[in-house]
Amino acid sequence: MAAALCLRGAARSLLGRGRRQCAGRVSLAAVCSRSMASKTPVGFVGLGNMGNPMAKNLMKHGYPLIIYDVFPEACKDFQDVGQVMASPADVAEKADRIITMLPTSLNAIEVYTGPNGILRKVKKGSLLIDSSTIDPSVSKELAKEVEKMGALFMDAPVSGGVGAARAGNLTFMVGGPEQEFAAAKELLGCMGSNVVYCGAVGTGEAAKICNNMLLGISMIGTAEAMNLGIRLGLDPKLLAKILNMSSGRCWSSDTYNPVPGVMDGVPSANNYQGGFGTTLMAKDLGLAQASATSTKSPILLGGLTHQIYRMMCAKGYSQKDFSSVFQFLREDENF
Amino acid sequence: MAAALCLRGAARSLLGRGRRQCAGRVSLAAVCSRSMASKTPVGFVGLGNMGNPMAKNLMKHGYPLIIYDVFPEACKDFQDVGQVMASPADVAEKADRIITMLPTSLNAIEVYTGPNGILRKVKKGSLLIDSSTIDPSVSKELAKEVEKMGALFMDAPVSGGVGAARAGNLTFMVGGPEQEFAAAKELLGCMGSNVVYCGAVGTGEAAKICNNMLLGISMIGTAEAMNLGIRLGLDPKLLAKILNMSSGRCWSSDTYNPVPGVMDGVPSANNYQGGFGTTLMAKDLGLAQASATSTKSPILLGGLTHQIYRMMCAKGYSQKDFSSVFQFLREDENF
Amino acid sequence: MAAALCLRGAARSLLGRGRRQCAGRVSLAAVCSRSMASKTPVGFVGLGNMGNPMAKNLMKHGYPLIIYDVFPEACKDFQDVGQVMASPADVAEKADRIITMLPTSLNAIEVYTGPNGILRKVKKGSLLIDSSTIDPSVSKELAKEVEKMGALFMDAPVSGGVGAARAGNLTFMVGGPEQEFAAAKELLGCMGSNVVYCGAVGTGEAAKICNNMLLGISMIGTAEAMNLGIRLGLDPKLLAKILNMSSGRCWSSDTYNPVPGVMDGVPSANNYQGGFGTTLMAKDLGLAQASATSTKSPILLGGLTHQIYRMMCAKGYSQKDFSSVFQFLREDENF
Amino acid sequence: MAAALCLRGAARSLLGRGRRQCAGRVSLAAVCSRSMASKTPVGFVGLGNMGNPMAKNLMKHGYPLIIYDVFPEACKDFQDVGQVMASPADVAEKADRIITMLPTSLNAIEVYTGPNGILRKVKKGSLLIDSSTIDPSVSKELAKEVEKMGALFMDAPVSGGVGAARAGNLTFMVGGPEQEFAAAKELLGCMGSNVVYCGAVGTGEAAKICNNMLLGISMIGTAEAMNLGIRLGLDPKLLAKILNMSSGRCWSSDTYNPVPGVMDGVPSANNYQGGFGTTLMAKDLGLAQASATSTKSPILLGGLTHQIYRMMCAKGYSQKDFSSVFQFLREDENF
Repeated sequence: MAAALCLRGAARSLLGRGRRQCAGRVSLAAVCSRSMASKTPVGFVGLGNMGNPMAKNLMKHGYPLIIYDVFPEACKDFQDVGQVMASPADVAEKADRIITMLPTSLNAIEVYTGPNGILRKVKKGSLLIDSSTIDPSVSKELAKEVEKMGALFMDAPVSGGVGAARAGNLTFMVGGPEQEFAAAKELLGCMGSNVVYCGAVGTGEAAKICNNMLLGISMIGTAEAMNLGIRLGLDPKLLAKILNMSSGRCWSSDTYNPVPGVMDGVPSANNYQGGFGTTLMAKDLGLAQASATSTKSPILLGGLTHQIYRMMCAKGYSQKDFSSVFQFLREDENF
Repeated sequence: MAAALCLRGAARSLLGRGRRQCAGRVSLAAVCSRSMASKTPVGFVGLGNMGNPMAKNLMKHGYPLIIYDVFPEACKDFQDVGQVMASPADVAEKADRIITMLPTSLNAIEVYTGPNGILRKVKKGSLLIDSSTIDPSVSKELAKEVEKMGALFMDAPVSGGVGAARAGNLTFMVGGPEQEFAAAKELLGCMGSNVVYCGAVGTGEAAKICNNMLLGISMIGTAEAMNLGIRLGLDPKLLAKILNMSSGRCWSSDTYNPVPGVMDGVPSANNYQGGFGTTLMAKDLGLAQASATSTKSPILLGGLTHQIYRMMCAKGYSQKDFSSVFQFLREDENF
Repeated sequence: MAAALCLRGAARSLLGRGRRQCAGRVSLAAVCSRSMASKTPVGFVGLGNMGNPMAKNLMKHGYPLIIYDVFPEACKDFQDVGQVMASPADVAEKADRIITMLPTSLNAIEVYTGPNGILRKVKKGSLLIDSSTIDPSVSKELAKEVEKMGALFMDAPVSGGVGAARAGNLTFMVGGPEQEFAAAKELLGCMGSNVVYCGAVGTGEAAKICNNMLLGISMIGTAEAMNLGIRLGLDPKLLAKILNMSSGRCWSSDTYNPVPGVMDGVPSANNYQGGFGTTLMAKDLGLAQASATSTKSPILLGGLTHQIYRMMCAKGYSQKDFSSVFQFLREDENF
Repeated sequence: MAAALCLRGAARSLLGRGRRQCAGRVSLAAVCSRSMASKTPVGFVGLGNMGNPMAKNLMKHGYPLIIYDVFPEACKDFQDVGQVMASPADVAEKADRIITMLPTSLNAIEVYTGPNGILRKVKKGSLLIDSSTIDPSVSKELAKEVEKMGALFMDAPVSGGVGAARAGNLTFMVGGPEQEFAAAKELLGCMGSNVVYCGAVGTGEAAKICNNMLLGISMIGTAEAMNLGIRLGLDPKLLAKILNMSSGRCWSSDTYNPVPGVMDGVPSANNYQGGFGTTLMAKDLGLAQASATSTKSPILLGGLTHQIYRMMCAKGYSQKDFSSVFQFLREDENF
């Protein structure tokens, strides 16, 4: 593996040097060609709700795309502007930088290590970036398999939903070798406004999971506190104001308040439409739960929070924004 | 009761006029004496860890004190500068503005309605401000009893600990008739930098309880998320930074982080000494629990949070700052 | 008080001796008079769903009744056969053995210590038995007040619902001085098949509260385990059978299974009609919660269980049997 | 696969007929040889605390053993009486009935599908019984792989600890095709007194997981109820008696009471030594949690229970019996 990595390193430094020279010699033609056509193509696997606008932002920054999605219709936006491949393996044959954006750990395993997976035809020195939100231990396993092939894997899950994906201001939390972070940032910066280095491979996923667990907890906490206060006679707006200038302050209280009428422009102001679906929150908390179990970390509130969002999914809230937990806590007849 | 309120109203307006007249007759000497020494005395019952520095701040603002504490030694700081009385009733006989600062609902009931309580000798038109953290339904009951005597009750619990009490920058959350808020603020403003009107009587307590419940929840959430992230390989400082720029951000993560080494000047940096004791947090959550039960408000996370702090009290954490829940979650052998 | 208790003891021992003689000398007349008219009247306060059939069972055993209920219509079944009084005080004037059956702690406080309460006219040596389910600390307070009047108080809450009340096979859990247990059992045995001595005053309530907390927990546990097993492919009847011969066995699994189709003659077989309403379970868990807080006993599962039943009450399950938690856990669309 | 299954079916029916003939022709010699030597050898993989006594019980019933354990020393008890192989594959080469008893899902996957796993050399028609406690979805996956090789897989986890394994009175919960249950029972009946058919493959694991989840919940519930009752003044033995004749009754209260002094011969009577370790309970609840997540079944109490046992493991209780949760709830200073 050491040898493979050396080879890969050599390949990449050549490539890197090439790019740097390109940026160095400034003739008009060079500038044109760099911004128009000289960029080497980037592979993109997984063109769903999130992957689709992300890939388009890469294109806008001048990267030709080599794409694949398990559902052919997902590729139709790209038929004229990108090359649609028949498998992840074929993408890997044509592109040495690939981004994957997949719904679950199992999908990621299939796309990387399956019979037609990336690893079947990956080129040595390739940079593979997985932006899926998956179990960090799966990221680590994939990284090992990728390294065996002389390529490099980084995990880079995103924070921010479809809107942020379209606007190109996602946050990426990146795990992998620090010396390769700049190369990853070059691509990720085309799709997000914030690209944060988190540490060794898997820590990008870890950071996302920990953040979302805390988010899920403080949202329910905010909903419980607001509901209790209202029943004790407090005006919701005033209570929110008091919390926000006190030690109860949190993102769920000051930026995304779950009580209708307290803030504008948030899902609670729009019948909990849009935003971050309860089913996605439940999925992320499932990952937190699995990570907590495997690392033997007690998550008393995190575990209960997971179950509450599960209950909500079972009670018709799966498509609503997760702040609808406020509605879930209220009496049926009153709301 | 309407009649009683009318009487009380009449009494107060008479009294008020008296005070205003006093303020009206403007000789230079009078002005001097008003600002220096002519301020009418203020009663203060309960001179414990919090009450002691609060009372001293009132004195600094020129208010002569009429004081009582059930423990005589608590009054010794005031022997030369205030009048020490033998009972709350005696305080009420001498002062028509009284502040009470007591540990529990039962203490408050005793001090107001007990055989030697304030109500035995309260003057019509008196303003009684209770800064204790107690059950809002008790505040409402006390307010009713006080009104029967033609006086006025407001609840005004504080946020901020002994340090803030000394520095005079507590936050007061005030419940009671809005037209009397200015009168209360005149006194409370001597002891705090922030005096917030919350609504009808009991809403001051309600706001405090709701804030502290959310604080208790988000602190445990932060501790769980930080602990999980560390076990997944993240650097604690980096993880805190990521949470604080993301949707997991809360006061417990960005101002009072529970992980040793992440921030300076917080209890976690000082072996969880000082700060807000776990036993006090458990007490406030007990009040939240009782209020939730009586108003039939579900508090799934609030209830579990209450129990976790109770467990901590049973495990030797009662005197440590409540952020020591991070330590509680870690393995014995590692910490 | 010691003197008063002595007097009371003397009065009762006279009475007791009289009864024993009556039972000893067996002439036909004696038997008749014992069963027909010689029994001294018993007071009964609170003739609701439970109190009504309990009082009737006392009558069937030959006890003349002196009754009171705050709702006059509740007394109409007894108009011809018992004396309807205008207040608890009047009941106490006419009867030296009184049973109270009231919905809440506050009602009990009012009936005993209110302006027209039992204690206004209670006779020395009276035996007052409270079968309400209330806070054990309230029972202890009432016992103290009753003792001050030279009378005796015992707490004797019941297990078993309206059906058991009608059939006369309730279980009574009795707290109070052991030497008076026989006297209490004489009356309680007319209404229940099981009269258990639990210890000092308050322990009857304590036993009931602890039992119902454990019942509430194991019912939800059973519902969760059955639901999980069914989703994993197990037949519900077979799973119940396996649990019942294994270490998961509990009353909720083997006697009152919450899954429709597993057992006959239980609420789950009848759309969760009848049985023990969720709102009553939530009330009992509220008492458990308050007792746990005041004794600083951690109840992690008990606290969460309390909140789950509260949620159910808020979601339309308040009138259904508490085993409907199984239905609550299922997806809306499937059930 | 259909063809493979037909082949397997043919092979097995030949085998089965052989065995049945053996049992049919009753000469003295036949009986002798059947009970002494004619039994075909059985493979056994995994000779740890549980596997060791289980294998010995098979031997006592006359089955020659072909064994393997990853730790050679685990095989030394069997060196003279069984054949020790170098890998699971080698076991499969020599035995067409194999029992596996392994600690985790990962171990099971390795033993069956690894490079030297059973499936490398498994004979068509073989019967493979896995008594490990693992994720039911893993059992299903293994069953599919085994079927592809023309063999048969059943899951048969056990209830009962090392003592029951030695005494040969384990309970087996068996999942797999019903027509093969008799063949499995022939072997399992040598090691257990209770062999229960649960349904399709994976339902054995499901039944065990559901039972243990309910057990874990009701044990904590019992500990909380007993602790609360004791603090409210009840005698522990009396409280246990009351619970056991009431609706709070469960295996944890009547057979395995967690309070020292209530029962003899249980771990609580022996400083929580022996019994079922907290770490094993936490493991089983981790499986329940994973199954609940994958089937989207809410387990509010199950999830919290999981976390409580995790906390206990982190606090020095990992090797104690799981009923030590009672001790965990008590104050440090009192216990």
